[in-house]
Amino acid sequence: MTEPTLGNNIVTQVGIIVRDIEIKARAWSEILGLPMPNIIITDTVDKTQAEYNGKPTTARAKLAFFHTGQVTIELIEPIDGPSTWKDQLDQHSDSLHHIAFEIKGMKEKIAYLDSKGVPLVQRGEYTGGRYAYLDGGAQLGTVLELLEND
Amino acid sequence: MTEPTLGNNIVTQVGIIVRDIEIKARAWSEILGLPMPNIIITDTVDKTQAEYNGKPTTARAKLAFFHTGQVTIELIEPIDGPSTWKDQLDQHSDSLHHIAFEIKGMKEKIAYLDSKGVPLVQRGEYTGGRYAYLDGGAQLGTVLELLEND
Repeated sequence: MTEPTLGNNIVTQVGIIVRDIEIKARAWSEILGLPMPNIIITDTVDKTQAEYNGKPTTARAKLAFFHTGQVTIELIEPIDGPSTWKDQLDQHSDSLHHIAFEIKGMKEKIAYLDSKGVPLVQRGEYTGGRYAYLDGGAQLGTVLELLEND
Repeated sequence: MTEPTLGNNIVTQVGIIVRDIEIKARAWSEILGLPMPNIIITDTVDKTQAEYNGKPTTARAKLAFFHTGQVTIELIEPIDGPSTWKDQLDQHSDSLHHIAFEIKGMKEKIAYLDSKGVPLVQRGEYTGGRYAYLDGGAQLGTVLELLEND
């Protein structure tokens, strides 16, 4: 067995794209018996420095998180500019979008995955860290998200 | 906070539908640095008693499992008859399919979810337990799988 090449194989988040986050968050809350989470909006591009397909994007999203043990269920409603979130909603309607791993060394991990045919599609900063989505569709059958918290 | 109504909110599995499980399993193995798993084939319908949309189905699947902490990543290649797996492959190509919860009391949990607008679409037996897929697309944005191990 070789060493894990992302440095971490533990799935910590599952992301779901939704058209109406208020309705979906209420349904998750009711069905799982969890408190209704706050719905937050991602920062503006001057803070996130978001890039989609290598270009700056004004994409933002409404987010809601359900914390259930090791895995956080993340609901994502895309708003504004082009994004992997909006693409998926347009092409597949409400649906599972990604699984996430927490890593250290974002630049190196992105380069590693790119070398394996899993290219970067979107990235951005948030308070205390950064994220990247990598299109694993061809190799893995899913988008991967990398999360690096400082 | 109300009591969790499935009795368990811990995500234990993420399922991915793939067209060619050999190729995808090798990619997951290489990229995550995990051993190549055995690829198994689900039992025949006389053992699984599988039903899809309320009718018996000859649906089977090739399966591969990557165990990564609390969450198992399950690759599923549909074969043979009609199934939720084949529907998703036909409609969305390789893609995330479900998140799974382990529960007790399958009949009651299916009835509970049905009462919340999350209907049963497929069920079956396996050695030591049973599974059910419930179509949470409209309410939750994803298929849920319930797993009950005896």
